[in-house]
Amino acid sequence: MVRPRLKDVAELAGVSIKTVSNVVNDYPHVSGETRARVEAAIAELSYRPNLSARSLRAGRSGVVALAVPDLDNPYFAELATHVIEAADRRGWTVLIDQTQGDRAKERVVISGIRDHLIDGLLFSPLALTGKDLAGRDERTPMVLLGERVGTGRSPYDHVGIDNVAAARAATLHLAERGRRRIAAIGVQRTAAAATGRLRLKGYQQALAEAGLPADPSLVAPVARWGRADGAEAMSRLLGSGAPDAVFCFNDTLALGALRTLLTRGYEVPGDVMVMGFDDIEDGRFATPTLSTVAPDKALIAQSAVDLLAERLGGGTDKAHEVCVPHRLAFRESTEMPRKGT
Amino acid sequence: MVRPRLKDVAELAGVSIKTVSNVVNDYPHVSGETRARVEAAIAELSYRPNLSARSLRAGRSGVVALAVPDLDNPYFAELATHVIEAADRRGWTVLIDQTQGDRAKERVVISGIRDHLIDGLLFSPLALTGKDLAGRDERTPMVLLGERVGTGRSPYDHVGIDNVAAARAATLHLAERGRRRIAAIGVQRTAAAATGRLRLKGYQQALAEAGLPADPSLVAPVARWGRADGAEAMSRLLGSGAPDAVFCFNDTLALGALRTLLTRGYEVPGDVMVMGFDDIEDGRFATPTLSTVAPDKALIAQSAVDLLAERLGGGTDKAHEVCVPHRLAFRESTEMPRKGT
Repeated sequence: MVRPRLKDVAELAGVSIKTVSNVVNDYPHVSGETRARVEAAIAELSYRPNLSARSLRAGRSGVVALAVPDLDNPYFAELATHVIEAADRRGWTVLIDQTQGDRAKERVVISGIRDHLIDGLLFSPLALTGKDLAGRDERTPMVLLGERVGTGRSPYDHVGIDNVAAARAATLHLAERGRRRIAAIGVQRTAAAATGRLRLKGYQQALAEAGLPADPSLVAPVARWGRADGAEAMSRLLGSGAPDAVFCFNDTLALGALRTLLTRGYEVPGDVMVMGFDDIEDGRFATPTLSTVAPDKALIAQSAVDLLAERLGGGTDKAHEVCVPHRLAFRESTEMPRKGT
Repeated sequence: MVRPRLKDVAELAGVSIKTVSNVVNDYPHVSGETRARVEAAIAELSYRPNLSARSLRAGRSGVVALAVPDLDNPYFAELATHVIEAADRRGWTVLIDQTQGDRAKERVVISGIRDHLIDGLLFSPLALTGKDLAGRDERTPMVLLGERVGTGRSPYDHVGIDNVAAARAATLHLAERGRRRIAAIGVQRTAAAATGRLRLKGYQQALAEAGLPADPSLVAPVARWGRADGAEAMSRLLGSGAPDAVFCFNDTLALGALRTLLTRGYEVPGDVMVMGFDDIEDGRFATPTLSTVAPDKALIAQSAVDLLAERLGGGTDKAHEVCVPHRLAFRESTEMPRKGT
């Protein structure tokens, strides 16, 4: 069989050779529909672009990396899905790294060891320090997600949410519903605990604002943010006098806590209200459904991809700081059923 | 700052230059501990290997691709986590593609358009046909996961489970517990439905074996395998005379069905038993906890990575067919509480 050429792909797809070339080179200014038609023709003909020439011409691999702690955490799985979709709209492929929030692995991510493969990096670090970042060679554009790293001015674009305000609003919601012994699950004793510290701060602010005492026995530390950790922390809280509400720093902790409460015969929300954070899909189908803080994950992903695209396009002005909005989702775990129904 | 050299990394890590070179070139015969020490030293020194020379020498990128339908499905998120871990033990990075089970996207995955980036491909296709596969240029090693594609002899290694046997055992479990109106949720009317067809076959075999009639009104088709689809299908089943058990073709369908049952006031398992498939973590923390078919996901991932490593090492004998074992996990959604407790 004669090796198919660019011209053959263009003919089959009914587009110009220039358009095929744009698709092959991952240039963004091709509509999704046209791109799909060209890709179908490429598949049909088993066409292979002359890749060494391509790389030299474009200077781009068409690949960006997304580094997250853990895809087993539905928040990061959902975020990754949104990032892949946003990247796909630009014709980019996403390479995913899992760091387990381990500082050594996070330092490898920013070390540039794979920079020949990727055009840019989207990174949600947990354990990285400001010093780690300061030592980075900045040749490959990077956008940071999640908590700010370090305290100084950062040269990196950053997309996050206002964790203190969100945690404060979630806790106030519980106080407004008349709860007085509001527990918190999710503080961590590790360096990789910035998010937990911010959510604890919001929780404490809300208690003060509602005139409730800050009882340290109501703050349950955990090793990790998984369902099993939430279940175990809730058992500990029940052992030292049951709270009447619990704010969990993410939804998997909350789903674990919920399981413990229901197993022990507590009614939710009657005896104990439960509030989570992240709005993962699991919580919307739990019984009772889980009230939660809902950050706009699609917008986080879109903002990060847009910022990276701007950097790749040569944008060199100062680092952008994007704060994506969140809302509270009130569901059955904090909504008392109406009397008489 | 003087650009650090291989020698500096070796010195800091306390290993030989040869060992650093092995790590940089992603050769598998380096222990995890040594690799971690070298990577830490690489990060510490911001060492960058001379990558063009490296690629020429090794002829490898150290990257493999994993293509799955959807990371939002916890089964694939958990499988991806296991694949990343197994690949990490060989020093490989995993690039993840989402295909949405769309045939055009799946054909792009096997088209070789990104083969310059990857050493090999692990692929869990949904819509791909035997003809699509037959037309593939086989230069980049590929291992298939999930259902077999096409009917003929395949040149590709394949890792799967025995879906018919697993679905049959799951359904028989419900019959053995005295259930007579056992419904099934998960048949799809699309081409990308091989898994569903096999699980339906196992369900039907079990009904015949248990002497139960095959009532077509108890088989509820769905568009996708998500929680919302399971919830909606359960509503339909309840509208046409409630079943006393339901076998859902995956756990997210089952969690959706469970939500509908509890919302409508049905007791699970008392009124309706619920059985899922996949053993995702969500089901272990639902109330009631979800009985399910538990395929050995870690072994699926490990087998696929091992087969790919064998191909990359030059293994050229005929394609391997690996059937990974499964077990049934009996939890609260099918276990009647003991009388008197």
